[in-house]
Amino acid sequence: MRTKINHVTVVTMDEQFHVYENGYVVLEGNTILETGEGEGPADADGTVDGKNGILMPGMINTHCHIPMIPFRSLGDDCPDRLRRFLFPLELETMNRELIGQSTRYGVCELLLSGVTSVLDMYYFEDQVAAACEEMGIRAYVGQTIIDMETCDSKNTDQSLAMCEELIRKWKGHERIRPVVAPHATNTNPPEVLKAAYELAERYDVPYTLHVSEMDYELEMFREKYDQTPAEFLYGLGVLGERTIAAHCIHMTDRDVEIFRETGAKISHCIGSNTKSGKGVCPLRDLKAAGVVVGVGTDGPSSGNTLDLFHQFRMIPAFQRTWYHDRSIFTARDVVAMGTIEGARVLGAEKETGSIEPGKRADLTLIETESVNMFPVYDPYSAIVYSADASNVDSVWVDGRQLVKGHRLCFADLSAERKALDGMMKEFKERSVKYADIR
Amino acid sequence: MRTKINHVTVVTMDEQFHVYENGYVVLEGNTILETGEGEGPADADGTVDGKNGILMPGMINTHCHIPMIPFRSLGDDCPDRLRRFLFPLELETMNRELIGQSTRYGVCELLLSGVTSVLDMYYFEDQVAAACEEMGIRAYVGQTIIDMETCDSKNTDQSLAMCEELIRKWKGHERIRPVVAPHATNTNPPEVLKAAYELAERYDVPYTLHVSEMDYELEMFREKYDQTPAEFLYGLGVLGERTIAAHCIHMTDRDVEIFRETGAKISHCIGSNTKSGKGVCPLRDLKAAGVVVGVGTDGPSSGNTLDLFHQFRMIPAFQRTWYHDRSIFTARDVVAMGTIEGARVLGAEKETGSIEPGKRADLTLIETESVNMFPVYDPYSAIVYSADASNVDSVWVDGRQLVKGHRLCFADLSAERKALDGMMKEFKERSVKYADIR
Repeated sequence: MRTKINHVTVVTMDEQFHVYENGYVVLEGNTILETGEGEGPADADGTVDGKNGILMPGMINTHCHIPMIPFRSLGDDCPDRLRRFLFPLELETMNRELIGQSTRYGVCELLLSGVTSVLDMYYFEDQVAAACEEMGIRAYVGQTIIDMETCDSKNTDQSLAMCEELIRKWKGHERIRPVVAPHATNTNPPEVLKAAYELAERYDVPYTLHVSEMDYELEMFREKYDQTPAEFLYGLGVLGERTIAAHCIHMTDRDVEIFRETGAKISHCIGSNTKSGKGVCPLRDLKAAGVVVGVGTDGPSSGNTLDLFHQFRMIPAFQRTWYHDRSIFTARDVVAMGTIEGARVLGAEKETGSIEPGKRADLTLIETESVNMFPVYDPYSAIVYSADASNVDSVWVDGRQLVKGHRLCFADLSAERKALDGMMKEFKERSVKYADIR
Repeated sequence: MRTKINHVTVVTMDEQFHVYENGYVVLEGNTILETGEGEGPADADGTVDGKNGILMPGMINTHCHIPMIPFRSLGDDCPDRLRRFLFPLELETMNRELIGQSTRYGVCELLLSGVTSVLDMYYFEDQVAAACEEMGIRAYVGQTIIDMETCDSKNTDQSLAMCEELIRKWKGHERIRPVVAPHATNTNPPEVLKAAYELAERYDVPYTLHVSEMDYELEMFREKYDQTPAEFLYGLGVLGERTIAAHCIHMTDRDVEIFRETGAKISHCIGSNTKSGKGVCPLRDLKAAGVVVGVGTDGPSSGNTLDLFHQFRMIPAFQRTWYHDRSIFTARDVVAMGTIEGARVLGAEKETGSIEPGKRADLTLIETESVNMFPVYDPYSAIVYSADASNVDSVWVDGRQLVKGHRLCFADLSAERKALDGMMKEFKERSVKYADIR
């Protein structure tokens, strides 16, 4: 079964950044067969008319906590919300069932906004894996390991064991990839961070954690070790090509050098970081050093929406303002971060992140008929500065069309929402106790 | 004819910030008759079921160049684009007809994104006024006065005369209000800035200009007068309650004090300012001093889209990051800037900017059925952090419903686009000459 998509501007994100102004893409099974200028070959089994839209590689969200949908818009402007009510509320109300259904809902949002690969880290991650598998998205599922009682484990021994179980169950799956996810530099003792890294090495899977995000995290490492969190992780031996460090807001020149040297990757979550006034990751310096950086939304509690478009606009806005230089971070650089660089973060650049023959058919079609999408002189500019999630018309993951005409092909959004809302009664009741919600 | 809108969360933005969780609003003619909790009175002639949406005051865009739609996505990442190609391209290709049609298209975008009042400044402003009048939006139309040849005048004598003509023609109109719009502090000689201010005083209309936006503007005033632009304007006597200063990025403590003392207002255009790396207006300090600040998008060339949602997210993100304080600029503060504070900027707070009996019926209904709008604990948070322009379901201006079910009631978007595209042939050809568009 060969499908041809034509009458589109193909933004390939290949090494030469080829753009085919009136282009086409042919898929066969789960694979991209060819792309180029023109109508495309005549022998396709089916043709999708892209109606002058922009066809880009499916977007890659490298840091998310999908199941936190119930928290969206709760206590957004409350100081220290993580410890004041997110942790207690999670412990008391999140459970296997709610996490599964929240994931289903969150995946609807990801797909509808053109995200085809996501890295998640949360609790009961096996439920997240199962929901992602069923919904058709490509997912990297990270079981959280944190040194406190959580909704899914009593201690780190238990969560490490759950993580190993997750790996054994999903390792080798076509779309679902297990990940070892110690929560943060400061929420696990060093020996647990190390044991988690050894687990990741043993099974050859990614290792992800929050790094250099919080003021008190930096203070703690300074006081206790006279080091930055990055220096500490380096000394511990847990920075390597499989390491995906989320946030990395507060980075010294030495930290940048450590990331360059070790090949550790970064997930940049500008929307979440700046909504909470934490600061701005020094992307310009990281990029100059050759560190690989992708885009993350963070969870729906911290980042509110799971699409990359909001992040895209903010990336150049903050970098250019920070360095007072409008020439840095062009729209093309930003689209690269949300596609091929994101694939590199996940170690998946051979299979996704660009439109090239032989790669998996993960594609996002952005329509240009809506009022905000005219005119389009430059597709990168249109994606970064004009578009939002509502412009995503169609999405393919692994060759399967999951979104068509702005709607999910295999899920009923209102039914997913109704099911989730039905499970949130206790959550809502307790949330009032914790959050100053107005 | 009384219309009732119910089954909505009414975000009134009145002085006490009343929110009616299951509320209603009744309109009669162009006026809000009542609002409150519950189903509303039984004797309405017609009822609109708001389906659990959020009904807020129509949004107010206090700085725009609507007719620049043809420039959107053109040379976005090009340095000094204003002088390198925007000015020459405007001179050579913008004309009365193109400006009229671009305005029609831009107003479609404004209305579809929930903006009910807009302050514009551009050329052939009489055409802008006529288009806005016909499309039904509330518009403050500023004829640009700039000391160079433009597409509509040879010199400032001519543009000042055009401005006076505009005022005489539209003064007293219900929705269309003329404005005197000298381009910027540094693009007019002092005597022209002063003559323009006298014109605004004589006819009692607003006076708007770009202030403290450009590095070279600040340098010029420092070298020539050893003053900031704000100090210079103050000395010239052109800062007063009718003055609407756009941008105000680079402000000293003394500048803030000058604005407080004179009652001059500010239009904050965070998206445009930071896309070009110019800097961040010190809103926290301005607010502490009691200066009135509204939100502007700038034109579709600099700010790309004309909706306020993109600005809303960026306002707290930049302020909180700038001051490293997550407690400042709550979602409610931001919604206030886009509604009642915007009305104060325009001197229109008695007629618009909040949902209160006796005010004009300028209303925006945001649906909560889309995937990004669940859950909603706090309507302010949902508007600022979750929503985007695509969530705007319905819009009323002056009591007349102009958008219904995400569609324009009295305009055909695709016809407006086709007409505009048909007029852009020469523009597109010449633009290639000027802009390095990839």
